[in-house]
Amino acid sequence: MSELVLGLDVGGTGSRIALAPLDPASGALPDAGDGAGSAASRRELTGPRVHIGPEGSSAPAVVDALLDHAAEAWPEVFDLAAGDHRLRGVALGATGLASLVDEPETLPRRMAERLSVPAAAAIDAVTAHLGALDGAGGAIVALGTGAVAVGHPGSTLPSAAGERTGSAACPAGWRRVDGWGHLLGDRGGGAWLGRRGLEEALRAHDGVDPAGAALLAAGRERLGAPADWPAQLYTRDDRAGVLAGFAADVVALAASGDVVSGRLVEAAGREAAASALAALTPEHPGRVVLTGGLAAAGGALTAGFTAEIAARRPETEIAAVAGDPLDGALHLARLAAASGIVTQEGFLWT
Amino acid sequence: MSELVLGLDVGGTGSRIALAPLDPASGALPDAGDGAGSAASRRELTGPRVHIGPEGSSAPAVVDALLDHAAEAWPEVFDLAAGDHRLRGVALGATGLASLVDEPETLPRRMAERLSVPAAAAIDAVTAHLGALDGAGGAIVALGTGAVAVGHPGSTLPSAAGERTGSAACPAGWRRVDGWGHLLGDRGGGAWLGRRGLEEALRAHDGVDPAGAALLAAGRERLGAPADWPAQLYTRDDRAGVLAGFAADVVALAASGDVVSGRLVEAAGREAAASALAALTPEHPGRVVLTGGLAAAGGALTAGFTAEIAARRPETEIAAVAGDPLDGALHLARLAAASGIVTQEGFLWT
Repeated sequence: MSELVLGLDVGGTGSRIALAPLDPASGALPDAGDGAGSAASRRELTGPRVHIGPEGSSAPAVVDALLDHAAEAWPEVFDLAAGDHRLRGVALGATGLASLVDEPETLPRRMAERLSVPAAAAIDAVTAHLGALDGAGGAIVALGTGAVAVGHPGSTLPSAAGERTGSAACPAGWRRVDGWGHLLGDRGGGAWLGRRGLEEALRAHDGVDPAGAALLAAGRERLGAPADWPAQLYTRDDRAGVLAGFAADVVALAASGDVVSGRLVEAAGREAAASALAALTPEHPGRVVLTGGLAAAGGALTAGFTAEIAARRPETEIAAVAGDPLDGALHLARLAAASGIVTQEGFLWT
Repeated sequence: MSELVLGLDVGGTGSRIALAPLDPASGALPDAGDGAGSAASRRELTGPRVHIGPEGSSAPAVVDALLDHAAEAWPEVFDLAAGDHRLRGVALGATGLASLVDEPETLPRRMAERLSVPAAAAIDAVTAHLGALDGAGGAIVALGTGAVAVGHPGSTLPSAAGERTGSAACPAGWRRVDGWGHLLGDRGGGAWLGRRGLEEALRAHDGVDPAGAALLAAGRERLGAPADWPAQLYTRDDRAGVLAGFAADVVALAASGDVVSGRLVEAAGREAAASALAALTPEHPGRVVLTGGLAAAGGALTAGFTAEIAARRPETEIAAVAGDPLDGALHLARLAAASGIVTQEGFLWT
C-alpha cells in the first residue's frame, strides 16, 4: 500500500497540485498507468490563478477547483472507501493568505474535512522556504512577481530518524519581511524591477533622462507606443503581472550591457539580500537562499545579492535552492501527516 | 444681455462646473438671486469623480451629470429659446482624456450639440496650464494625485486688443511630459510621494532600514497596523488616491524635520522641475509654474524645485500661479467662443 500526500501551490500567475509519496526517501509513486508516472517523485496538475477583487482573494475557490481537478484525475486516491493507496496529509501554500483571505484557518479545515486527513495551509513564502531549504533553518528570499523573505529555525520530518526534537517537527519562529505587494514594497521582485524599467523608459521618452533609451525601445517592442501603456496597465486587475512581464526585458538588457538596466537588476539583488538578512533572527541558522523565478536571472542580480550579503553580514552562508514551492507544499503535507505543525498566525494554519 | 461661458473640470477626486462672463474684464455675473452671485467672477457646482474600470474612464458620464446638474441649477442659461443671458462657449478639462477615453473628440461634439455653442475638451494638464499661466506661454507642472507637465507657446483672447496674432488665438504646439499614472511615472506627484513614504515606513517595519521610523508611526496612525495596509490598498479602485492621502503625512513630517521625509519631499520638487523643463521647447517662453494641490506644501518641495531649475536652466523664470484648472476651463471656453482653438491630438479637441 502506498502512503501519499497532496501539495497545492496557489499563486498570482497560476496554481498547481501535486501527489507524492509520504516518505520522500521511497521515491516511488503509484503507477499512473500512463507510462510516465512511476519514476517521478511527484505527479502534477495545473489550475487557475488567484484574482484579487473588491471581495478579496479568490484563493479558496482556486483550492476547490484544484481538488475537483485532482479527484477527477486521480480517483483512486480520493476514493476513501477503497483502493490500495492511502492519503496521509494535504497542505497548501497560497499568495496573499495572511492579508487578503478572510479567516485563512478555514482553508485547512475545509481540506481536512473533504479528504479526512490532517491538513495545513501556509503563505506561499513558507512553502517556498520549506522547498528551497528542504526544511532546514535559515532565510529565503523569493523573487517572483512579488518579493518576500522568511526566516525559520528549521523543521525535521519524523522519517529522519534521530533528528526529531520532541513532538513538534515544525516549531513556531517564522519571521516574514516584505511581501507588501507592488505598491508598497516587494522590493527586488519582478513587478518592482519591471516598474522601474518602465519608469526609466518613460524618463527617456519624456526627454528628462536619455539613459533609459534601450529600455524605451524594449518597452515599445513589448507594449507598443508609450501613449498606449497606461490603458494596457490601469484597466487590468493583474497590474503586477504586466509590470513583472517587463522585468524579463530589463534582465535581458542588463545581460547585454545596458548600464541603466544593469544598475536596476543589481539593485534588485541588493534589495533581496537586505530582506533575507532582515528575516533572520538570532534563533535562525545564518543561511540564506535566493529563489523564485527572477532568481534564475543570475548575472547582475546574483552579483548584487552576494555583494550586499558580504557588505552587511559576510559570515552568512549562501545556499543553493533544493526544491520549488510545490516541493515545499508536499514537505508541509508530510509535516501535517506527522501532526508536527505549530500554527503561527500570519504564516501557517492547521 | 450677459454673454456667458461654461467650464468643466473633471478629475479623479471630484468634478466641478463653473459659469462665468465671456469677457473676464467685465467681472460681473448675472445675479443668481441668492444674494451671493453678483460679485463673484464665477459660480460653481460640484459633481462626481472619475472612475477607471475595465471599460476605461467614466469621464463622459461625469460630463453628462455635471451638465444635468447645471441645467437644473441655472435654467435661465440653458433655456435656448428665452432669457436675457446668452451662452457663448463651453470647455472641459478632464483627467485621462487622451489615454483612457475612447474617441475624446466626441466629448466636445456632444457638449456643442446639447448647448448649441462652440465647445472644446482638453486633458486636465492643458486646463491647468491655461489657468496657472492665464493663457501665457511657458510650462506648468501640476502635482496633484498624479504629476504632469505641459508646455505651450501661449494663447491670446480676442478681447486683448492688439495682441491677437492672426485668427488662431490658441495655436498648436502643446508638449506633454509625464502624466503616466502612479505605476509608470507621475514623478513627484501625491501618489508618487505617498507610495515612497509608505515604502520607507515598511523598510523600517521590516528591520531593513530604521530611518523611516517616523513615517511608520504616521502610517500606523492613518492606516492602522501594517499587516492591514495591503487589504486597504489592493482591493480599492482608487489606489492612487489612497497613496496620495499619505503624501500629506510625508509633507508634515518633512516640515517637522524628519530627515527621510524631507529628502522625499525635496526629491518630489526636483522631479517636478525636471518635468517642467522637459516640457519646454525652443518655441516656448522660458517660464515655469509649479501648481496643483501638492504645490501648496512649500518648504522642501519648493526648495527642491528651485534648486533643480537653478542647476539645469538657471535663466528660467519661475512664475506664480494665476488661477486654477477651472479658471483654465473657462479660459478655454472663451477661446472656443472665439473659434480660436486648433485641435491637437492628445491634448485638445474641438
